[in-house]
Amino acid sequence: MPAAELIELWRGNLQEGVHRGHAVIHDGRDIMAAWGDPDAIIFPRSSCKMVQALPMMESGAADAAGLGPEQLALACASHNGSVQHVEKVGAWLSGLGLGEHDLRCGCHKPWDKAEATRLTCSHHAPNQLHNNCSGKHAGFLTWTQHAGVGPEYVEIDHPLQQAIRQATAEVAGEEPAGVGIDGCSAPNFAGSISGLARSMAAFANPANDARGRGMGRLVDAMRAHPELVAGEGRACTELMRAMGGRVAVKTGAEAVYIAIIPEKKLGVALKIEDGGTRASEAAIAALLVHLGMLDEAHPIVGKLLRDPMKNWRGIEVGGLRLAPGFPGHSRVA
Amino acid sequence: MPAAELIELWRGNLQEGVHRGHAVIHDGRDIMAAWGDPDAIIFPRSSCKMVQALPMMESGAADAAGLGPEQLALACASHNGSVQHVEKVGAWLSGLGLGEHDLRCGCHKPWDKAEATRLTCSHHAPNQLHNNCSGKHAGFLTWTQHAGVGPEYVEIDHPLQQAIRQATAEVAGEEPAGVGIDGCSAPNFAGSISGLARSMAAFANPANDARGRGMGRLVDAMRAHPELVAGEGRACTELMRAMGGRVAVKTGAEAVYIAIIPEKKLGVALKIEDGGTRASEAAIAALLVHLGMLDEAHPIVGKLLRDPMKNWRGIEVGGLRLAPGFPGHSRVA
Repeated sequence: MPAAELIELWRGNLQEGVHRGHAVIHDGRDIMAAWGDPDAIIFPRSSCKMVQALPMMESGAADAAGLGPEQLALACASHNGSVQHVEKVGAWLSGLGLGEHDLRCGCHKPWDKAEATRLTCSHHAPNQLHNNCSGKHAGFLTWTQHAGVGPEYVEIDHPLQQAIRQATAEVAGEEPAGVGIDGCSAPNFAGSISGLARSMAAFANPANDARGRGMGRLVDAMRAHPELVAGEGRACTELMRAMGGRVAVKTGAEAVYIAIIPEKKLGVALKIEDGGTRASEAAIAALLVHLGMLDEAHPIVGKLLRDPMKNWRGIEVGGLRLAPGFPGHSRVA
Repeated sequence: MPAAELIELWRGNLQEGVHRGHAVIHDGRDIMAAWGDPDAIIFPRSSCKMVQALPMMESGAADAAGLGPEQLALACASHNGSVQHVEKVGAWLSGLGLGEHDLRCGCHKPWDKAEATRLTCSHHAPNQLHNNCSGKHAGFLTWTQHAGVGPEYVEIDHPLQQAIRQATAEVAGEEPAGVGIDGCSAPNFAGSISGLARSMAAFANPANDARGRGMGRLVDAMRAHPELVAGEGRACTELMRAMGGRVAVKTGAEAVYIAIIPEKKLGVALKIEDGGTRASEAAIAALLVHLGMLDEAHPIVGKLLRDPMKNWRGIEVGGLRLAPGFPGHSRVA
């Protein structure tokens, strides 16, 4: 099946653009609803960080290191690299007897404006703690230390990545369709959008075993610390706050978004084929409204989908709309 | 006809995404080649600034104000707001006896990194001269002063915008399909992608009349001053330099790109439906290689299309590819 038109861009009374993609709502056994092609193969990118954290939970490494909800939320985060993110990940590494130099995520300018401005205006370069994935990598190092294996934890044949591959396949109910290298150098296993949604349904309704308990703790940590999962002004943080912690959501590069809805035992996954983040954020907001988890009158729904787009002089010039047939079209558009 | 797949994004050995759109090569009479739907209605956005400058040329306003090639290039520019752009547009306004406060484009942070850093670290706000459209608006004011009409030149019923509407329809050979308000508050007339390509063919092969002479001077100015049309590091500037000034190219917001090729008497227009600039830049590079105007071995073709995409640690993770059927697929991909 082809990708479905999900989000339109309008200017004045004419459509200026469109974003196509795939979306699936899964209950862990069956596809409840789908748009586009549920069999489409995608890279989940950072939307699957909670899956990548499972070996750390199941192995007892997290407990051995005494990790609390803040560290577990950071392990699932694509954070802004604000002072609090950097300090908390740095303290986590120190507690392991490790440091920033043990990370393998590389450096990029933090997304947090205050920290980025501080670095720029003081002529300082960012370090690996600023990388949005530094918490995930601290989790990787927590497992690596506990397992007593080598430090090159992002190599595809490293025991950690093989454990992540196995967990990925088991929660998705399918073998990975392939592997790529992510921006942070960690392997990223490709799979179907329905497999990703099925994985998120497993997190929404975890079994009472070591893996299931680990899943539940990761989801609870994300819902308890939305500011650590992303950062001020970011869609993940604002959406989780808007839903009062009832739902865990996570974005991934190239316009992937997932939602974990424990009270409905549902998982949601979507991918915009062109990588347009404005569309993935608008689409996840629409799906959460559609599922009754997000108040369509909440300001975040306006910010991500419904508010008019304004130009440099504050004049309304257009905005995003739900494509016909996409859920909530009649209610939210 | 639907949009055609033009540019693919690959990660490892799997396709991660795709950008669809429309592209037309026009000789002024007929469509020479097309991908997607040549009748698709688009907003040209900033890609049509040379059309918006025609009233200033035809009316004699440009000559009355003594404008040279630098000002004409700036009138067609989406510039970086670097010091030289700001100073040259400021001097132009001063020569008219006007100032920054007469502009109606609004303010945004300049794209030029040095100037943006200077403003941020000195706690200064950008002014309207930093707006990428300030040169176009200086051209608007040049016409307005010459015509002795009111200062609210971006209102849709202002004589300038009506003159632009007429010029737009005449060079495109079609009535505008509608109008929207651009980021800089100027009206932007929607039309077919083939009409935009036809307009650019007219600039490539201008008639020997007041309009045609104006067209030729604008194209010559763009080709002579690529650094003023965009700025250091920008695709428009680097592409025009790479082609030795033989071709004028111009980008527009939401992934529009045009090319004016005088020596072939051809116009090119393309639009990526999702607004992805990485795809519009890769697609125009591919078309220019396909047309024999750009050396496929030039570094700019690598930068925009062929070079591997590297992550934060410099590891090659994937890259862009031409979709099957898009020109130069076999040669450039």
